[in-house]
Amino acid sequence: MRPTITAFDWVPDFAKGQVRDLRVRWALEEVGQPYDVIYLSQGEQKQAPHRGRQPFGQVPTYEEGEILLFESGAIVHHIANTHGTMLLPADPAARARAVEWMFAALNTVEPPIMDHATATLFERGKPWSAPRLPSVLARIEERLGELSRRLGEQTWLDGDVFTAGDLLMVAVLRIIADDGLLDGHPTLRAYVARGTARPAFVRALADQMAGFTGAPAPEFAAWLARQGERA
Amino acid sequence: MRPTITAFDWVPDFAKGQVRDLRVRWALEEVGQPYDVIYLSQGEQKQAPHRGRQPFGQVPTYEEGEILLFESGAIVHHIANTHGTMLLPADPAARARAVEWMFAALNTVEPPIMDHATATLFERGKPWSAPRLPSVLARIEERLGELSRRLGEQTWLDGDVFTAGDLLMVAVLRIIADDGLLDGHPTLRAYVARGTARPAFVRALADQMAGFTGAPAPEFAAWLARQGERA
Repeated sequence: MRPTITAFDWVPDFAKGQVRDLRVRWALEEVGQPYDVIYLSQGEQKQAPHRGRQPFGQVPTYEEGEILLFESGAIVHHIANTHGTMLLPADPAARARAVEWMFAALNTVEPPIMDHATATLFERGKPWSAPRLPSVLARIEERLGELSRRLGEQTWLDGDVFTAGDLLMVAVLRIIADDGLLDGHPTLRAYVARGTARPAFVRALADQMAGFTGAPAPEFAAWLARQGERA
Repeated sequence: MRPTITAFDWVPDFAKGQVRDLRVRWALEEVGQPYDVIYLSQGEQKQAPHRGRQPFGQVPTYEEGEILLFESGAIVHHIANTHGTMLLPADPAARARAVEWMFAALNTVEPPIMDHATATLFERGKPWSAPRLPSVLARIEERLGELSRRLGEQTWLDGDVFTAGDLLMVAVLRIIADDGLLDGHPTLRAYVARGTARPAFVRALADQMAGFTGAPAPEFAAWLARQGERA
């Protein structure tokens, strides 16, 4: 059964290539599973019927017959879990470690990274954002150092085999790559470069970018204008 | 094979009953799996040999024969996945939805809640914490409203059956219960009360609390003194 995901037809420039349907598209490409996309206009994600699919009013969602899922980490897990051993190894211990890295990416590494996005994008210009930034950066730096030491000279987090854990970790780390925050960690930069060089990632990113054919909703146009005033 | 987890022998009062080995203990109690505990002194989690088990220098970890795991979400998933259908239903769609709620708890609901802990505990007294707090609370409130609407009159997130998704969601929500942040959401308060009334939770919490037999390391004593000065 061919699954259908949801994605946006427009996001601000800084979010292009970062919206979380990318993670799901990447997983689908890795396992060679064709899929369809329903594109939402900005604002539509907060209204019915999308709220019925996604209680938090976000993308992506995933529908496949009777299965309806939200939360990109869970969707990647479902795709990996139902497509042989392409993203989750067969050996039970190795499979559990791949899931471990999925959760580590989303619950240990991503929160400080999203905090950085809050400080520099969503709350840019708030009086507390600049004074707080060194503290945010220190938390990210601690995690990056720890991750870099664990990765060491390995190709992927668990050795030679790319897993769904690497998929999510690369997706999380590349959020801050353009900000230069990986520059002090050549091991992690090379790891992200290996991940994003995979043909499946390249196709997923191109497809997300090609989907941005819409225009900003009025409230976003106003928000963008305000951001410009503050820049 | 009887698993061994790691936990702390001392934490500050505000962290008692909140350290993440509680989530793993709760899952083990739910499935009726006896386990052993290695207790670490404060500071030990950042040194070898624990760094070998846990790259981010945290607890808990989980060892069971050849399996060594960190990241509490992943450990709960492993326990659920290897103990029949007690925490993950047999039906594939329901099982995927239970995993969905696990990721939603840890990647969508917990980050704003931990941001609140940063603002009110770890960075209490920093000049930016008080001005930023309304913005942190607004992000939590948005998620709580959405979750409350989705839960509705159901007993558990997916209906009548308690899953690993409920286990993690209850564990996440109870972080802010004592701060009164659930008071505006009677549905969620009742949900957390149902979760924490489960005998497995009661045993897990009692066992974590009974493990706090150690004393603060010197750097923590100094930190506590500083916090007192700022209070």
